[in-house]
Amino acid sequence: MDTSGQAERSETFSWTDPKVGLKYLPTMSGLDFLSGMRDGSIPRPPMASLMNLRLLAVENGRVEFECRPGEAHYNPLGVVHGGLACTLLDTVVGCAAHSTLAAGFGYTSIDLSVSYLRPITLQHAVLRAEGTVVKSGSRVIFAEGRVLAPDGGLLATATSSLLVFAAAAPTQATPKA
Amino acid sequence: MDTSGQAERSETFSWTDPKVGLKYLPTMSGLDFLSGMRDGSIPRPPMASLMNLRLLAVENGRVEFECRPGEAHYNPLGVVHGGLACTLLDTVVGCAAHSTLAAGFGYTSIDLSVSYLRPITLQHAVLRAEGTVVKSGSRVIFAEGRVLAPDGGLLATATSSLLVFAAAAPTQATPKA
Amino acid sequence: MDTSGQAERSETFSWTDPKVGLKYLPTMSGLDFLSGMRDGSIPRPPMASLMNLRLLAVENGRVEFECRPGEAHYNPLGVVHGGLACTLLDTVVGCAAHSTLAAGFGYTSIDLSVSYLRPITLQHAVLRAEGTVVKSGSRVIFAEGRVLAPDGGLLATATSSLLVFAAAAPTQATPKA
Amino acid sequence: MDTSGQAERSETFSWTDPKVGLKYLPTMSGLDFLSGMRDGSIPRPPMASLMNLRLLAVENGRVEFECRPGEAHYNPLGVVHGGLACTLLDTVVGCAAHSTLAAGFGYTSIDLSVSYLRPITLQHAVLRAEGTVVKSGSRVIFAEGRVLAPDGGLLATATSSLLVFAAAAPTQATPKA
Repeated sequence: MDTSGQAERSETFSWTDPKVGLKYLPTMSGLDFLSGMRDGSIPRPPMASLMNLRLLAVENGRVEFECRPGEAHYNPLGVVHGGLACTLLDTVVGCAAHSTLAAGFGYTSIDLSVSYLRPITLQHAVLRAEGTVVKSGSRVIFAEGRVLAPDGGLLATATSSLLVFAAAAPTQATPKA
Repeated sequence: MDTSGQAERSETFSWTDPKVGLKYLPTMSGLDFLSGMRDGSIPRPPMASLMNLRLLAVENGRVEFECRPGEAHYNPLGVVHGGLACTLLDTVVGCAAHSTLAAGFGYTSIDLSVSYLRPITLQHAVLRAEGTVVKSGSRVIFAEGRVLAPDGGLLATATSSLLVFAAAAPTQATPKA
Repeated sequence: MDTSGQAERSETFSWTDPKVGLKYLPTMSGLDFLSGMRDGSIPRPPMASLMNLRLLAVENGRVEFECRPGEAHYNPLGVVHGGLACTLLDTVVGCAAHSTLAAGFGYTSIDLSVSYLRPITLQHAVLRAEGTVVKSGSRVIFAEGRVLAPDGGLLATATSSLLVFAAAAPTQATPKA
Repeated sequence: MDTSGQAERSETFSWTDPKVGLKYLPTMSGLDFLSGMRDGSIPRPPMASLMNLRLLAVENGRVEFECRPGEAHYNPLGVVHGGLACTLLDTVVGCAAHSTLAAGFGYTSIDLSVSYLRPITLQHAVLRAEGTVVKSGSRVIFAEGRVLAPDGGLLATATSSLLVFAAAAPTQATPKA
């Protein structure tokens, strides 16, 4: 019996060319861009597909995502890899910051400081993650994020600082996706 | 012409049931376990497949990985998602810590503090990442990691603290994979 | 006219030999020890004198301090040195963690991650700082802290992880201060 | 016998009005300003007096300080307060960043992430601390710092990000201290 064969797994992840969503970026406020992503009119990025992330809600300075971890996200120690919590936290603090920006402004993460409170396993069928702006600013935004278990228990937290900058003038004023 | 169809992408990632590698964990030192993973006798974890990570070298207190970022790892801003650098950094600090542990000891990450020095794009065909133990200990290990571009430029750094603990007695002394 | 002489300042700080308070530590719970410090029956540590810190309130998992910054705490840039916010934040997260520990247990800070939201100046006559346990544990405690201006504005925040350990048996069961 | 009286300590710290040094700031490069502080032609800031810090060496992107901890810096647990290491680390990363700036540019710390590797006690008569710029930039500088025991052992490390900005035009072109 070929047990090694039985142990092989594969999963196919699909996404839309990120250039499609990117065309909307220069002319939309962060809140409008993220609202479009929540509603499906702007495609979610590839990494969101790989990590099973979905944007549930966005308002000025606050976002909420859900994430469905799978075996694909496991580390060698038999639990979900810390990188999933990091990706989720990097996402929510970034989107929370983005939601405060007018069209023509961009942002980039300066740093992310993650606390791993409890291990994440497949028993956590659906994670919820929130990102909140702690202090907005014209040069630096401070944000925090947290990942919650289905029962509301705190699994991981993060703080982040993000740099704000005037984005390059759009080469194409009216995106035609 | 269906341009939206042309923009759809998909990629299939494969891995071995993480329980296969996990059976080796209780009876092997960290250095032996990671050496087995480097040599291919122990399967790499699923998350390493998703992120295109490969362990190149391991010694006591130090590991080296490579990572090939793809479009699958993009964020909505047109560069590689910060979560890839985080996953890579969480991996190298964790494995560097693991490499110092005798059989029967486990570890878990307490926190990870990441600095994003420069954006990662597909022009960085192969990233190299190093993890180093800064201070070992019987209860807490401090480690640091860094991600380097092909030209040696520093892209991201991290520091991490990791908790060491006596693992539960193995239920099966001789793993039969 | 000797203007340089006029620019010279000095301030005298007073404290009680820290060994006096230390004698109480092995036999008291963290909550009782900190309550004694708040009430003045246990002397505050020297660093609290240098930084003009005062413990206002303590309960299980939460502490509140005030701090009166002075010219003595200035940096070369004409504002209060970041080290004052750090000292205040290290203090509140440490004491919040300590407040959850039974007699016979000690703790030590593993790390502290500080975000400097706004500069602190002498116009902030009295700072308030709060420390809260985010997750308690028998091995690691996660806590967070924040420094507030008199008007309630957030000046600095921090997250911290702290190691818990069984303290050495006290050499002297009944402290005689 | 009044033992409580014997336990009372006090220490007087002296400094120069920080406005004296501040006058030099707008018209000097960071390297010249810090070199003046090292040579004594520009007074060190008050906080450096409180913490017994002394600038030993400065070059472009790198500084070295020494620090003599005293009983004044103790915490309630019988070791030097973590705030001293934080102040030292905040100082070296800030000065390392400053050393790279031309006249007319200022900086402010965004965050500081400190790892406490080993406790600091009075047996560490003279600490040495180094700050190094990891990546300079026109908007954000990344720096790291470390505190070393007299025997070269690593006691604490930190990473920091610092915001660079064009300082307000000096009100007084030629400082007359």
